[in-house]
Amino acid sequence: MKLWLNGDIADAGDIRIDPADRGLLLGDGLFETLLVRRGSPVFFEEHLLRLMKGAEVTGMVMPYAPDKIRAACRDLIGANGLEDAPRASLRLTLTRGTGPRGLSLPPEPKPTVLIGTAPAGPPPERLSLATVSARRNPWSPSARLKALTYLDNVVAKEEAREKGAEDALMLDTGGMIACASAANIFVWDGNRLLTPADRGAILPGITRAALLELAPGIGIETREEEIAPERLLRASGVFLTNSLMGLVPVSRIDGREVPAHPMTARLAAAYEVLLDAAAAED
Amino acid sequence: MKLWLNGDIADAGDIRIDPADRGLLLGDGLFETLLVRRGSPVFFEEHLLRLMKGAEVTGMVMPYAPDKIRAACRDLIGANGLEDAPRASLRLTLTRGTGPRGLSLPPEPKPTVLIGTAPAGPPPERLSLATVSARRNPWSPSARLKALTYLDNVVAKEEAREKGAEDALMLDTGGMIACASAANIFVWDGNRLLTPADRGAILPGITRAALLELAPGIGIETREEEIAPERLLRASGVFLTNSLMGLVPVSRIDGREVPAHPMTARLAAAYEVLLDAAAAED
Repeated sequence: MKLWLNGDIADAGDIRIDPADRGLLLGDGLFETLLVRRGSPVFFEEHLLRLMKGAEVTGMVMPYAPDKIRAACRDLIGANGLEDAPRASLRLTLTRGTGPRGLSLPPEPKPTVLIGTAPAGPPPERLSLATVSARRNPWSPSARLKALTYLDNVVAKEEAREKGAEDALMLDTGGMIACASAANIFVWDGNRLLTPADRGAILPGITRAALLELAPGIGIETREEEIAPERLLRASGVFLTNSLMGLVPVSRIDGREVPAHPMTARLAAAYEVLLDAAAAED
Repeated sequence: MKLWLNGDIADAGDIRIDPADRGLLLGDGLFETLLVRRGSPVFFEEHLLRLMKGAEVTGMVMPYAPDKIRAACRDLIGANGLEDAPRASLRLTLTRGTGPRGLSLPPEPKPTVLIGTAPAGPPPERLSLATVSARRNPWSPSARLKALTYLDNVVAKEEAREKGAEDALMLDTGGMIACASAANIFVWDGNRLLTPADRGAILPGITRAALLELAPGIGIETREEEIAPERLLRASGVFLTNSLMGLVPVSRIDGREVPAHPMTARLAAAYEVLLDAAAAED
């Protein structure tokens, strides 16, 4: 497998990350995970825009123009023989690079840009969730960014696994529903679609945004609002979204079965059409 | 400068971190920063114990016995010519190592242990603080660990700098005083010493613990409790602590001068004696 690092493609085994990289030492970086369909990264613009916004908020510098990054992704997908793969994943990582010891921003930033790809099987058909103890913090700058700081989510997913579930249901510090360990959550209230409002405790997902735009056009009313955990008890369906999985229905929450909502499949089908259209434009 | 990586000492420029290391990709690791005085790491046992506790909580594996780590530190301090330096810093980093894509724990963990040293000048005589918007989360497993996930603190310190101060005063999500960007905080209430109680939103500092044990013996009453920001307005002194700086008085908070409390210097002197005693035992 090959990786792209700061302008060059090389075998992963020959790629060296500097031990002084702040991405490693301080979680001081951002990333995006994109779905690649038949060689084409899906929602490339949206992912890059989110990365650039995160860079602005955190004072990081992306040293390459969008066109250069797009070409790098294409080159790497080709180098790894994934042009014709039905599904693959691509990860674009930006770190603040190396710097002197301590938290202060380095006077002369030398950012690290790393791109990798991986084969991807089909997404899971269903996922079970368990509510975990780690909660999302609306006052955390990194909570609303796709930052390298994923340890809480790693711990959350492992706690869920220990509880016999496949992913974590994370609340925010106010006790409201936030997200899964690496996915947004949607809740069916009859035929109305609810999702936690973006008040800083969730990552504003690319798929989440696409669905909120798509749903009204096919007759589904959506609302972004605070969702109490109790509300899940009377939900007529729940599903997760992220770029790699798309829409995945939730089968159980804390051991209790969640109804399968027929509209989830309809929305998923409409989302697939949207992905095809996006790929055709590319 | 030389580093120690997984058993070997080499020039930093020859040390390669694997681009698939979860420390880099997910902030999935822990670290300790130790003060080295005349070649001897201060409170080595305490730092290693905290690291091992963090590893247990997060399901990480430290592949080397304490004696091996201690010898590695000694060897590296020697290799970098810091045996006689009055002050230096040593950083011990443990990551979960490489693994397949995603958050799930790797089935066969190959952890990364990295040790580095850096020369250290004298600590600052005083530091000014500004209250920042990022808040510490008591429901975050990583908030109470010295985890690699420091982006919020990096952003907090930069916000403080933009406000004309040298470090950040961070509140917790409940709006109570928590800590600075990489230091605990103590507040003088007359001759009584207060520090935020450890309720998950702060890193339980090694220096903090040492002072709480030391102070009563020299006639200073201490209390760990919730401290409201308003309380700082009538504080008779404030100081920060961490392993590298020891005790550093706070000069200003949000532009308002903080009184210099005479007992801070007395406590700092007692702490220096403690460090000398610890070094003598070593």
